[in-house]
Amino acid sequence: MSLNPKRTIAELQELRALTSDENGAQRVAWTETWQKARRWFAEKVKGLPVEQRLDAAGNSWVTLEGESKKALLLGGHLDSVPNGGWLDGSLGALASLEILRRFAGQFNGRPPVSIRCVDWADEEGARFGRSLLGSSAFAGTHSIAADRVRRDKDGVLLEDALRACGIDIDRFPEAQKEQANAAAYLELHIEQGPVLETADLPLAVVLGTKGVERHAITFYGQEAHSGSTPMNARRDALAAAAKLAVEIRPIAMKHSDAVCTVGSVKTFPGIPTAVVGRCEATLDQRHLDANILATMLGDARQASERFAQEECCQVEWARIWNIEPVPFHPHLIALCEEAIDETAGRHLRLPSGPLHDAAEVARAGIPAVMMFVQSLRGISHNKIEDTRPEHLELAVTALDRLANKAVDWIQEQNG
Amino acid sequence: MSLNPKRTIAELQELRALTSDENGAQRVAWTETWQKARRWFAEKVKGLPVEQRLDAAGNSWVTLEGESKKALLLGGHLDSVPNGGWLDGSLGALASLEILRRFAGQFNGRPPVSIRCVDWADEEGARFGRSLLGSSAFAGTHSIAADRVRRDKDGVLLEDALRACGIDIDRFPEAQKEQANAAAYLELHIEQGPVLETADLPLAVVLGTKGVERHAITFYGQEAHSGSTPMNARRDALAAAAKLAVEIRPIAMKHSDAVCTVGSVKTFPGIPTAVVGRCEATLDQRHLDANILATMLGDARQASERFAQEECCQVEWARIWNIEPVPFHPHLIALCEEAIDETAGRHLRLPSGPLHDAAEVARAGIPAVMMFVQSLRGISHNKIEDTRPEHLELAVTALDRLANKAVDWIQEQNG
Repeated sequence: MSLNPKRTIAELQELRALTSDENGAQRVAWTETWQKARRWFAEKVKGLPVEQRLDAAGNSWVTLEGESKKALLLGGHLDSVPNGGWLDGSLGALASLEILRRFAGQFNGRPPVSIRCVDWADEEGARFGRSLLGSSAFAGTHSIAADRVRRDKDGVLLEDALRACGIDIDRFPEAQKEQANAAAYLELHIEQGPVLETADLPLAVVLGTKGVERHAITFYGQEAHSGSTPMNARRDALAAAAKLAVEIRPIAMKHSDAVCTVGSVKTFPGIPTAVVGRCEATLDQRHLDANILATMLGDARQASERFAQEECCQVEWARIWNIEPVPFHPHLIALCEEAIDETAGRHLRLPSGPLHDAAEVARAGIPAVMMFVQSLRGISHNKIEDTRPEHLELAVTALDRLANKAVDWIQEQNG
Repeated sequence: MSLNPKRTIAELQELRALTSDENGAQRVAWTETWQKARRWFAEKVKGLPVEQRLDAAGNSWVTLEGESKKALLLGGHLDSVPNGGWLDGSLGALASLEILRRFAGQFNGRPPVSIRCVDWADEEGARFGRSLLGSSAFAGTHSIAADRVRRDKDGVLLEDALRACGIDIDRFPEAQKEQANAAAYLELHIEQGPVLETADLPLAVVLGTKGVERHAITFYGQEAHSGSTPMNARRDALAAAAKLAVEIRPIAMKHSDAVCTVGSVKTFPGIPTAVVGRCEATLDQRHLDANILATMLGDARQASERFAQEECCQVEWARIWNIEPVPFHPHLIALCEEAIDETAGRHLRLPSGPLHDAAEVARAGIPAVMMFVQSLRGISHNKIEDTRPEHLELAVTALDRLANKAVDWIQEQNG
C-alpha cells in the first residue's frame, strides 16, 4: 500500500463516530469505550504482516519486523479526556499506522529496520490523575507505590481498574523490555495551542517538552467582617494572591516561550461579607530551559513574599509536581525540519508546553522528536478541537518523510 | 433593683454555658438551642411587673407599662450564627433587661413612659440567609413571597421551620402593630470591628448603618491549556478579576469610612493546568453617604470594564442585594454622646458597617440610635469574640444613662 493521508482522516472520523457522544470523545483509559477503540484499532491492523500485543503496562505494540532488529518507533495514544476532541492522541496513533502500512507495502513486508507503532496506555491520566502512565512504565520512571493507592472519583482503585483490563501493576517494570533495539521515536500531535495558527503555518518541529514547576501557594490573612473592618486594618489574603496573579505575566514575559498560569484560586470563608482570611492559589510555570524555569520560580516566590508583607499576610508554598525540561534529539530535530520544509515549504520551531509520551521516551535515552500540526483556535480537550483536513494530510505526509529519514539515519549509525 | 452591670456579665456567661459547645455559640434562630436561650431569658423576666409575649413574627417583647403609653424600646437578639460569640446580640438583649429591671425598681414598677425590651427573631439569618427577619416584619419592609421559598441547607422550608416554633409567616404583617406608641429605640452592640480598640476607647455612638451595594461580577475569558497558550494569546478571566480585587482598595480609600470587599473568587475550570476561562467574584461596598456609595459603585464598574478590555475578556454585573444608608436620629445621637462622655469621658462617632435591627426600626420612622462597645481584635462571629469586662460594665452604665435621657426627651415631646 502507498501512503494515503486521506485514509487517516477517514479513520479518525470513524473512530470519532464510534467513541464519542454529544459532548465529545469518551475514550478515557481503562474504560469500556477506550477498550472498544483499541479493538477497533486491532481490526485495522489485521491483514498486515505484523505482530500485535500489549506490554506489561498495557501499551499496545504493532511490530513490522525489519531486516535489522533496530527499530523505529512511531507513537500516539487512543485514550482521551472525558468530553475530549477527535485528534489529541488519535492522530498520532492513526498516522503511525498509515506509515507502517506504507513501509509494509513498499518493502514487501520487510523494511530495512523494524517499524513499531505504539498506542500508549493512559497518556491523559484523566481517570486517576496520573498522566503518561504507560510511557513512564516503558521508560522506567514510574513508581508503583505512588500509583497503587490512586482512586477514581467513584473510589475505584487504579490497581483494580488495570486488573479488569488484564494488567497487573506489579509487572509494570517489565514494560521496559520494549526499549530493546529502539533506535528512534517519532510522534505527531496537534499543537493544542494557537502559535501555528497565528503564524499561518501548518507544521512545527518540537524542540522538547518544557520543564514544569507546579505549586500550591497559600496566603494566610485574617478573616474579618466586610462592613466593620477599615481598609487599612485588613489582612486580606485575596489582596496578596490577586497581586501575584497579576504579577505572573511580567515574570513570564521576561523570557521567550515562557508561561506562568494561576489556574485556581479558592477563597475562605469565601462569602461576600467577609474579608478573605485564607486564599489558596495554584501556580504552573513552564520553560524548556531549566535555568530560566528556576529563575521564574524564584521571581514568583520573591513576589509572593513581597505581596504577603504588603498585605500583612503570611505565605506558604508547597510543590504539587515538577518535571525537568526534556529536550528532543538534535539530529532528529534537524531531520524533522527537513521533512516539514520538503512537505509544507516552511517550518516553525516550538517547545511543547503540554507533556507528551515522547518526553518519557526521551528520558529513557532513546532519540526522540515530535511534530506539531496546527490546531484551530488553539483549543483541545474539548469537542470543538479541530485541524484543517489539508493540514492533517500535510502532517501525515511530513511524518512519513521524517520516518524515511529516520530509517536512513538508523541504518547509517549501524553502518 | 438598682442597676448592676456585673449581673449582665454574669448572665451573659450563664447563657454562653447553656447554649455553646466547643466551637462557640449555637443559638441559630428557629432551632432548639435558640428556643432554649429564649426559655432561659423568660425565666429571668419572671417576678418583674411586666407583660411578656411573642409578636406575629416571633419577636419577643417584655413590656413594663409606664404612666404614658409612649414607649422607649431597648433591643437586642439572642440568636447567633453557628460557632458564634457570646456577645453579638446577647449583650443588647441582656443589657436591655438590666435597664428594664432598674426602671422597675426605681419607679415602683411604673416609670414615666413604658419600657419595652425586644429580642428580635433571626437577626443573623444564619439558617435561611435572610438577616433582620423579625425586625423587618416589625418595620413592614419584609416580603413574605421572597422568604416563603427559602430553604436551609437540609432543604427545610423557612415557612415550616417558623411553624414548628409557632409562627405563621402569613401573619408577619401583624408584627407592625408593635410600632404603636414607640417613641425611641436604643440598641447596645459590640463593634465587631477594630476601630475602638485602635483608638483605645470603650464606647462609640453609631451614626447610622452604612448603605450596601453587593454584586456578583463575572469575567468571561477563554479556557486554554496552561502549557501551550502563550502569555500574549491569553484571555485570562482571573487576570481581569485579580486587577479588580487589587483596585477596590484605592476606590475605597478615596473616601473616609468607606469599605470595599471582594470576599469570594471562584475560578473555572479551576485546575492548575488551564488558563481561567470564567471567574466569578463578589463585591461588597458600604458607606453611610448614598452619593459616595454610588460613586464607589461607578468606579468599580468602570475599573472592571477597563480590566476586562485589557485582558480581552467580557464582564457582567448582577446585583445580589443592596440597601440604602440608614442614618440614626440626630437628637438621640447627641444624647448618646452625652451619656458616653458622662460614663467614659470620651466618645467616638462611627458609622456601622454591619447591619443591625436598629436600621429596620429607623426605617419604620421611629427615632433610633445605637451604642458600640469595643471588640477585642475586631473579631466577631467566632468563639474568640470578646470584650473587656470593664468595658461591658461601662457599656451597660452608659446605655442606662442614655435610657434616662431618652425617657426625658420622650416626655418633653409629649409635654
